[in-house]
Amino acid sequence: MKSDTSFDPYRAVRDLRTLAERTGGPDGSRRLCWTPEWVEARALLREELSTLAVEVEQDEAGNIWAYLRGQSDELVVVGSHLDSVPAGGWLDGALGVIGGLEVLRSLAAAPQRPQRSFALVDWADEEGARFSRSLFGSAAVVGTLDIAILRELKDRFGNSLPEVVAEHGVHIDALDGCRTRLANVVAYLELHIEQGPVLEHQGLGIGVVTGTVGIERERLTFTGQAAHAGTMPMSMRRDSLRAMSRFALELAEIGKTHSGVTTVGTVSCKPGVVTAVPGETVCTMDMRHIDAKALAAMFAEATATAHSAAAAEGCSVAFEHIFRIPPMIFDKNLVDSVRRAVKAVEGHEFELPSGALHDASEMARVVPTAMVFTNSIAGLSHTKEEDTTDEHLVMGLTAFHQAVLEAVNPG
Amino acid sequence: MKSDTSFDPYRAVRDLRTLAERTGGPDGSRRLCWTPEWVEARALLREELSTLAVEVEQDEAGNIWAYLRGQSDELVVVGSHLDSVPAGGWLDGALGVIGGLEVLRSLAAAPQRPQRSFALVDWADEEGARFSRSLFGSAAVVGTLDIAILRELKDRFGNSLPEVVAEHGVHIDALDGCRTRLANVVAYLELHIEQGPVLEHQGLGIGVVTGTVGIERERLTFTGQAAHAGTMPMSMRRDSLRAMSRFALELAEIGKTHSGVTTVGTVSCKPGVVTAVPGETVCTMDMRHIDAKALAAMFAEATATAHSAAAAEGCSVAFEHIFRIPPMIFDKNLVDSVRRAVKAVEGHEFELPSGALHDASEMARVVPTAMVFTNSIAGLSHTKEEDTTDEHLVMGLTAFHQAVLEAVNPG
Repeated sequence: MKSDTSFDPYRAVRDLRTLAERTGGPDGSRRLCWTPEWVEARALLREELSTLAVEVEQDEAGNIWAYLRGQSDELVVVGSHLDSVPAGGWLDGALGVIGGLEVLRSLAAAPQRPQRSFALVDWADEEGARFSRSLFGSAAVVGTLDIAILRELKDRFGNSLPEVVAEHGVHIDALDGCRTRLANVVAYLELHIEQGPVLEHQGLGIGVVTGTVGIERERLTFTGQAAHAGTMPMSMRRDSLRAMSRFALELAEIGKTHSGVTTVGTVSCKPGVVTAVPGETVCTMDMRHIDAKALAAMFAEATATAHSAAAAEGCSVAFEHIFRIPPMIFDKNLVDSVRRAVKAVEGHEFELPSGALHDASEMARVVPTAMVFTNSIAGLSHTKEEDTTDEHLVMGLTAFHQAVLEAVNPG
Repeated sequence: MKSDTSFDPYRAVRDLRTLAERTGGPDGSRRLCWTPEWVEARALLREELSTLAVEVEQDEAGNIWAYLRGQSDELVVVGSHLDSVPAGGWLDGALGVIGGLEVLRSLAAAPQRPQRSFALVDWADEEGARFSRSLFGSAAVVGTLDIAILRELKDRFGNSLPEVVAEHGVHIDALDGCRTRLANVVAYLELHIEQGPVLEHQGLGIGVVTGTVGIERERLTFTGQAAHAGTMPMSMRRDSLRAMSRFALELAEIGKTHSGVTTVGTVSCKPGVVTAVPGETVCTMDMRHIDAKALAAMFAEATATAHSAAAAEGCSVAFEHIFRIPPMIFDKNLVDSVRRAVKAVEGHEFELPSGALHDASEMARVVPTAMVFTNSIAGLSHTKEEDTTDEHLVMGLTAFHQAVLEAVNPG
């Protein structure tokens, strides 16, 4: 594919299909980070970049950067990730990288250098599907990785993260070196699929993303008294599963009341046999909201509810912290630019928060950030059924291109 | 221990302690059926029986019978089981066998033969803890074992039941031969610990057992739609865990309303991760009642509740049958005899159904049957903490002895 002077969203869609064919299988995409398929996906990207007049570099965290020098040192960055979950979809992450590549092609082929400099980044290990640490590359650049924790991470075969990433030129003691990449960055823009059903439900192809939600994750252990299912009268039971059940239902109401989301994703019982009242029931709680105050209120209510649900069944409950990230509200001016682009392409200004995390969540901590969403058919993602129509992909690519152009040529 | 003419419940308690010392460990009793510890427990029993003028035989199902001929061929049987769960208590099953041994000693030492013949039986594999088929020996005698199912059973190490029991002289194709043992049986009496908290809660040492409860066990699969915990709005979810939670709470109310017991003992979710709405939640249901009509009503209500709980969350539910046994109401005359004995020993006639199954559940299908319970401290059983005070054990043994005497010398 030779680059030409005009931005061609259809070419980006064709590139996405090529990528899917070369790094997918019957179960879906398999560009798991730090594996040969992921290396192959990046080789495809490097091949395309090699035809352009750009500087390509890999940073200390394994992120690939392609720079196009503009008239000023001010840098506009676009990007996303080529890595996927083990049996993932063809668009999650790839859309933003290939969309950014297409923008880069058009800028590189333009007769004039852009006013600002421009970079495309392919972030390393956004999914964290292998070592359970998502946003690896973007967090490294922002400086929010905890090296002591990274050192202990292993995949399910027992391979340690430091050893595996070293095979890809990444040395965790040297990660901090990549933080210089953010000098001069004035804007970060990312195109991504929604991975949820909201846009489709609205009958829309694309939307304006206002930020990424804050998340609270806890593990709850309800403790009662294990007992024989036949010999312990109902009135004398201390049934931890019943306590958990009360909690799960009330937690859902908390999510609804605050217009956030709350989820109990997994449950296990001890002794966990058909003939015993569960003495211990462990569940997880995930709650998300775009507003920090609302999230804090939800968390407080959930904590109180867990205690009252436990008490109602003669049980106790203990909490174990799993994960926490605050809401990341995107930059007002950059979101306005995305809003104008969406309006121009699809004739509306529909906006929504992202319920999933993205590399943009890390970038938003330190630089002006915004995102464009395309819809996801049936809201599906992280599965081979993940899909978006060509029409809506082209809409997303076109709006993204317009917003980037406003950022690189502001004057 | 030489037998003497007087029934001595304290000797029975001493024998129980000896058994516990020789076949227990730091984690509790370990007389798992078809293992060396179980063989050792039975060797102790045979040792004691060898000092008495009785005929000892092992039947085709591995049950040990000790016969004392009376003046008539009519046969009164007492028994229970020496086998235990892997880390069990010292009294579950053993109390009935050693209590029966003590009765046998006193009958054998009496100057006159009893009016009716008498047999002590040590049932094989009551617990079913190794091959998941409880009441093995008593079901064989009654003829309710399914040989085709037995042939496929394996323990957790992959050993097949037919091969393991053959090492103990039991051949599953010849099991039916043991059914002749029930010819001439006019009464079956069993002494057992309650394994629940009811008697202790009443401040009583012993009680009259009215029968064993009927049981319905099902596996329920609630199916909704797996979804991303961050991107799927609450209003669009089909959350199978929430459906199960509604069911678990309403099932408990059904148990309370009917004065039966209902239990959800184990739950699992798919995909079963903190970040996903569970698309599938599987749980077990166990429900028990002493009255067949009440049990049927509970089952019908639970089925309806499962469907309405599923529908309330946009889910469906499917049922898989696990196990079913009807209530076994004990023989009126024999229960009256036990009632008189309990009244004589502890001054009350408190009666309760057994929420657990016993070999008596099988025997009650075909012969007049009754049971005596001693209490269980804190209702605990199937654990090394299982215990009953010597005072209450002696009460139980004494009442049991009296009821047996009424049966063997009715005139």
